[in-house]
Amino acid sequence: MAKRSKPEPSVFDETCSARHALELIAGKWPMLILSALAESPMRHGALMRRVGGVSQKMLTQTLRDLERNGLITRQDHQCVPPHVEYELSALGGTLAGALIELDRWAEHNFPQLDAARERFDAAQRRSKRRP
Amino acid sequence: MAKRSKPEPSVFDETCSARHALELIAGKWPMLILSALAESPMRHGALMRRVGGVSQKMLTQTLRDLERNGLITRQDHQCVPPHVEYELSALGGTLAGALIELDRWAEHNFPQLDAARERFDAAQRRSKRRP
Repeated sequence: MAKRSKPEPSVFDETCSARHALELIAGKWPMLILSALAESPMRHGALMRRVGGVSQKMLTQTLRDLERNGLITRQDHQCVPPHVEYELSALGGTLAGALIELDRWAEHNFPQLDAARERFDAAQRRSKRRP
Repeated sequence: MAKRSKPEPSVFDETCSARHALELIAGKWPMLILSALAESPMRHGALMRRVGGVSQKMLTQTLRDLERNGLITRQDHQCVPPHVEYELSALGGTLAGALIELDRWAEHNFPQLDAARERFDAAQRRSKRRP
């Protein structure tokens, strides 16, 4: 292979913009909010109800980060009372498949994780009891 | 549909074990470490070099969490000098596809995110300048 003056973008390289892109989505709040918006466009209040445990502040901040990076759009219908809706952008939509796959993975496999933790913790206790 | 006494597991429900399973993987370090191990089994030192920016402490703690939850296995070859290797478990392997898809997504799309941020910030500056 010929020498390259510039390496390929890689999420493993902390100085690469690809890493920043991964970091933007690699968290429970962005992942859950994007998954929720993959179901349908939603208002702030509906997202608060859908994404269990998210705070007002965290939701507002995450929506802003996702909007700033072009993954969602904020539609202000400019009416009284205010009607603001968030939806996935075309770019955000390209993420939906992988995120939903991770959600389904978690919903399907959590019993195996729970069982593994029990086994691990029991083994730890046994090794501590050893003389 | 018949009434269910127990709701379906959902990552949107903060009290559900499925949410805990998602939270375990929803972070840059678990996602990058699992992606790296999807390439090949690795020792601690090789993972440190592969996953740019990870600290000793964070790598050790994340490997332990992933092992505890059954997503990776730790092979201690019981020799001198010590040779300990980490690899994806069968369960961890079922995650690899979606995680690698997210990595490729970031590496492919980061220029669009960078451009969106520039547009967003420029629009913010313009709206602040308005009298």
